[in-house]
Amino acid sequence: VDRAALDATLLVEPSARLTPRDEVERRLAGLRETLAVRGLEAALIVQNADLYYFAGTVQQSYLYVPAKGPATLFVRKVVERARLESPLVDVVALPSLRDLPRLVTERHGRLPSRTGLELDVLPVSQFRRLEALFPGVAFADIGPDVVRQRAVKSGWEVERIRAAAALADEVYTLVPGLLREGMTEAELAGRVEAEARRLGHEGVIRMRGFNQEMFYGQLLTGISGSAATYLDTPLGGIGLSPAVAQGVSFRRIRRGDHVVFDFVAVRGGYIADFTRIFSLGPLHPELARAYDVARRAQDAVKALARPGVTCAAVWAAALAAAEEAGLGASFMGRGEGRVRFVGHGVGLELDELPVLTTSDLELAEGMVFALEPKFVLPGLGAVGVENTFVVTADGLEALTTAPEHVVELAL
Amino acid sequence: VDRAALDATLLVEPSARLTPRDEVERRLAGLRETLAVRGLEAALIVQNADLYYFAGTVQQSYLYVPAKGPATLFVRKVVERARLESPLVDVVALPSLRDLPRLVTERHGRLPSRTGLELDVLPVSQFRRLEALFPGVAFADIGPDVVRQRAVKSGWEVERIRAAAALADEVYTLVPGLLREGMTEAELAGRVEAEARRLGHEGVIRMRGFNQEMFYGQLLTGISGSAATYLDTPLGGIGLSPAVAQGVSFRRIRRGDHVVFDFVAVRGGYIADFTRIFSLGPLHPELARAYDVARRAQDAVKALARPGVTCAAVWAAALAAAEEAGLGASFMGRGEGRVRFVGHGVGLELDELPVLTTSDLELAEGMVFALEPKFVLPGLGAVGVENTFVVTADGLEALTTAPEHVVELAL
Repeated sequence: VDRAALDATLLVEPSARLTPRDEVERRLAGLRETLAVRGLEAALIVQNADLYYFAGTVQQSYLYVPAKGPATLFVRKVVERARLESPLVDVVALPSLRDLPRLVTERHGRLPSRTGLELDVLPVSQFRRLEALFPGVAFADIGPDVVRQRAVKSGWEVERIRAAAALADEVYTLVPGLLREGMTEAELAGRVEAEARRLGHEGVIRMRGFNQEMFYGQLLTGISGSAATYLDTPLGGIGLSPAVAQGVSFRRIRRGDHVVFDFVAVRGGYIADFTRIFSLGPLHPELARAYDVARRAQDAVKALARPGVTCAAVWAAALAAAEEAGLGASFMGRGEGRVRFVGHGVGLELDELPVLTTSDLELAEGMVFALEPKFVLPGLGAVGVENTFVVTADGLEALTTAPEHVVELAL
Repeated sequence: VDRAALDATLLVEPSARLTPRDEVERRLAGLRETLAVRGLEAALIVQNADLYYFAGTVQQSYLYVPAKGPATLFVRKVVERARLESPLVDVVALPSLRDLPRLVTERHGRLPSRTGLELDVLPVSQFRRLEALFPGVAFADIGPDVVRQRAVKSGWEVERIRAAAALADEVYTLVPGLLREGMTEAELAGRVEAEARRLGHEGVIRMRGFNQEMFYGQLLTGISGSAATYLDTPLGGIGLSPAVAQGVSFRRIRRGDHVVFDFVAVRGGYIADFTRIFSLGPLHPELARAYDVARRAQDAVKALARPGVTCAAVWAAALAAAEEAGLGASFMGRGEGRVRFVGHGVGLELDELPVLTTSDLELAEGMVFALEPKFVLPGLGAVGVENTFVVTADGLEALTTAPEHVVELAL
């Protein structure tokens, strides 16, 4: 491996900062608590977002975490880069997956009998390969435990998400200078995305859910906002073909349209989610009214949410605001397209906990979620507002901070 | 669901064309051959790329394909859109996954005893949920069979890939007008990606491999081309942070640099892969020589490849060209970063068959692959050429057609 190129991976930009050692140690301590509670002797972490969380690197690896004692990162590719990126001390080359049982035994004395794996994301055939390599080992699913742990962010993580939120805020201010009548949604999206890239948007948006996919969010104009689709999201979009069937389309933006600017920002691996509305001429009165109701739903959640409040209570408060305005049937989509949540955790993945739905999960200090009250009105499209919030001891702090009024553009 | 929005999903643009019924019927016939050979009574297709292939839609679905008789698409979300997108006749709403056994029994008389599933991609916990719902059913892995079937493209599919290749060719011609000295790699990428979006690039690049991720390709300048990373690719890149650790970085493009323009185009769900080289001033003589060798390796493959030739023979021919020039150790990466293939199938996913490696798989008419002989030179970066080819009765036909000389830019 080219030393000059390796060094360059760390020297290019301060935001490419490494995960601090104490962050990783605290996270591994949390994972060891899971192992103790579940009666497991070790965990084997394999998925990119989880690897980055627990090891500070996504180099192709198996992270072995014993219930007691230091973790070992076994790296298939590229071990020298993993050593630079990860604060872990024990980073070992793994020539082939077949070598893993032998290397675990060498480093840790013996093989564990009961081991946790992320079975919520690991494909069956890869799981079976591990089962064959570790014939005496019983594997248990710790995916949901990892997801619960990752829902509560450290101060360091909140600052990473704040940086992503600042990118969303900044890109938003550039939209009026990029939007021209007659452009397609795809062309506008390209211009917006170019600015985002210049500002450091990483492109890849990780999602944990099987078959879930996202590309920058949903920049939807006019009737496009009503096009429901396969995603577990309130908005879908027409898309550029049935193969993708979401997001921007070749629809031309016309005078009288409005633009739902639903934008997912990613910096340093961390995600912020954000929605605002532009209007090319006056916003249709029904959309304007629904937008006010969305903001009232947001206010209702802000007044209520704090540590100890359940997701179900948050969902109920938002839904009540919609129903009081007679817009219950349009809240978070219509008909088949409707989803039963008003927000979702964000972090290293877009679809984290807490999901603001009829769930007993209680909000906790350090949780970060996108709150996105939205309406889909037949024949008119969608409106809504979305901000990324962190749960503090007192309530919610907004990480996305752009003004929320509908921006009417004169073209 | 909003009828106007639904209709809009089909009317916006001709390229959003639907998969023809005869395409889907031919593909389902191929799947039924797999079922016969494997002694299975049915297949249940669940993954997005495979759903699009066999049903013409990615709406959240389970496609049930009995060994004999018509298939049923059970749709969780959005059934009305699935009915518009899919040429299948039997498209049924699936209120909840729990309803699937009952609905299969209703439509098909009984539950199958042995059923094929894509176990190469289906997560363990979802598989266990299906096992619990179908207690008498034995599931077999048909993922590799589906992958083999999809490797051979129909004429209709080749035309879709040709459209993606044309997008890559066109974007390539725009690069000289977008590149400025002092830009970061990220800024240049954003400008290039904006043009691609305007031309209909769909953004989402599907990959089948667990943890594999790609965002438009690898636009790498100067030493960035030497930064190996976790991907199963010859090039990696510095990336914008260790969280993503691939692709463009904040490195500023300077006089004397060269640009590896490795670009993945996606239109209508189909992928073409493409690499060319720009140079800001004369290309370093060692890079120029390696680039000539890459083209010789490409020529060696073009002279050899036709139906019946093994992937191993193709790999050997390319490797021999590199070794004859004394560049064997730099071919397809260096050291840990080196991969042992010189090309990969492309289609609805970026990592399809055939993989041009030491494999007995024989090329067949209709296979489409990206051939990408590349070198990584210590301290200098990477060079190489990449084209997407279809295997014809006589040999290879290039779908990407841009000129291959190094373009020297005067800034």
